[in-house]
Amino acid sequence: MRVITTIKEMQHTMLLAKKGGQSIGYVPTMGFLHEGHLSLMEKAREENDIVVISIFVNPLQFGPTEDLSSYPRDFERDKELALNQQVDYIFYPSVKEMYPHSSSVTVKVNERTDVLCGKSRPGHFDGVATVLTKLFQIVQPEKAYFGTKDAQQVAVVEGLVNDLHFPVEIIAVETVREEDGLAKSSRNVNLLPEEREQAPNLYQSLLRAKEMILNGERNPQKVVSFITEMITEKTDGKIDYIEIYSYPMLKELTELHGKFIIALAVKFSKARLIDNIILEIYEK
Amino acid sequence: MRVITTIKEMQHTMLLAKKGGQSIGYVPTMGFLHEGHLSLMEKAREENDIVVISIFVNPLQFGPTEDLSSYPRDFERDKELALNQQVDYIFYPSVKEMYPHSSSVTVKVNERTDVLCGKSRPGHFDGVATVLTKLFQIVQPEKAYFGTKDAQQVAVVEGLVNDLHFPVEIIAVETVREEDGLAKSSRNVNLLPEEREQAPNLYQSLLRAKEMILNGERNPQKVVSFITEMITEKTDGKIDYIEIYSYPMLKELTELHGKFIIALAVKFSKARLIDNIILEIYEK
Repeated sequence: MRVITTIKEMQHTMLLAKKGGQSIGYVPTMGFLHEGHLSLMEKAREENDIVVISIFVNPLQFGPTEDLSSYPRDFERDKELALNQQVDYIFYPSVKEMYPHSSSVTVKVNERTDVLCGKSRPGHFDGVATVLTKLFQIVQPEKAYFGTKDAQQVAVVEGLVNDLHFPVEIIAVETVREEDGLAKSSRNVNLLPEEREQAPNLYQSLLRAKEMILNGERNPQKVVSFITEMITEKTDGKIDYIEIYSYPMLKELTELHGKFIIALAVKFSKARLIDNIILEIYEK
Repeated sequence: MRVITTIKEMQHTMLLAKKGGQSIGYVPTMGFLHEGHLSLMEKAREENDIVVISIFVNPLQFGPTEDLSSYPRDFERDKELALNQQVDYIFYPSVKEMYPHSSSVTVKVNERTDVLCGKSRPGHFDGVATVLTKLFQIVQPEKAYFGTKDAQQVAVVEGLVNDLHFPVEIIAVETVREEDGLAKSSRNVNLLPEEREQAPNLYQSLLRAKEMILNGERNPQKVVSFITEMITEKTDGKIDYIEIYSYPMLKELTELHGKFIIALAVKFSKARLIDNIILEIYEK
């Protein structure tokens, strides 16, 4: 496994591999790898000749009041985990390498961004789209792997790749969870012990909502109210949003029908957690 | 020579050629080809295995009051000219093919755009950057050829390619001129006969300015005043701008020194013409 820190060397190495006919599978990450990431690498390992991950905490996708400085980092541990997954290359650039001067060119996402996480994080998905545009050019992947935990990100990235014609296939991989159901996240380590105990209620509330819907509930407002009550009652978290939209277009629904996402974000004292489930309901 | 109209077929064909080890040279155009374009194709033919041109009048780079509908088109003639230049592929998509829905993703250029043509054409270079990002992904060129007649465009495209790491080399090719010095342009056919007679004064004024500078003038304001007077006196055109900036950064200068551009744009009744010269002055 090789660690590469410069754009020039990374891109050159990948262009050579591609010329040699090798397929490149790519997992972009912000590091502090957990089993969610490992499942993406595993899938990439199965499907490609070369597996590349990048570790880059992208300042452009953090807002001015967000947790850029407290975002957890542990490169030595990440390196070992990647080695165990038979990763071939880690691209590990500095902020200065990726943004040597203020960004003279940025990518703007004009759709699917003003709902869910995008609503409370203006500019977030522009930052994601800009860094991914850069990374896709540097790494030259045939396939790129994303977790459905951030379903809005998957939807936005699909839009980016389709609209700008990047020759890369986006593979969405299912959310990996702790035994108690909590979605794996680098931010989980920032939960206080009692918050960590409460946190599984996020996913539990989604499962209970699913049950309600399978039992016939078709009113999105009633489902949202139910989840709101359960999370308010069982956690100290502050609800950022609980929303239901069609998927992947992320349009509002007046009645639960077709493919849709129930997504939530809850702020604990030092960590904001997200989770979602995607359901499909077609009446006979 | 093959004409391809769909993104899918074009990209597929190019990715295959690239896998086969062939180098692709690319000349993006808006059609109505003239000798300026032909000189780009000639250069591309010399330096690459495969030569691709695109013909696409990009609505995204025209402002609401600009000449999109009067922009001249003649595909049959263009095809013949390209064939004569031994072009291998013409990519000729429809507007609907390139923009099937309102652009959910756009590329924004934040530098070098608020001067020269960019000042009077807000959003113009965002439109250029967005369509070139798409076209570079579709055509997958190793080298792309641009005329220095639009020197600001070359500077912006250099910035785009550097910042987003597109693996393409930008080749700037010198402006091709009529015998009387007028820079070749698709828009020249829209000049009235008397305007066509006056138009060579644009380049003549730049040459006279160069002479002044070689004779010791170092004050940009004086050079601009001289050009303004000459064009006002000798043409019916309305001056859009006459400006001097450092090149390629396009920063203001208080004294003529280093590498700089003298650029102008003049509006005739149905055509807006641009021209420039780039000079280098280093005092002993």
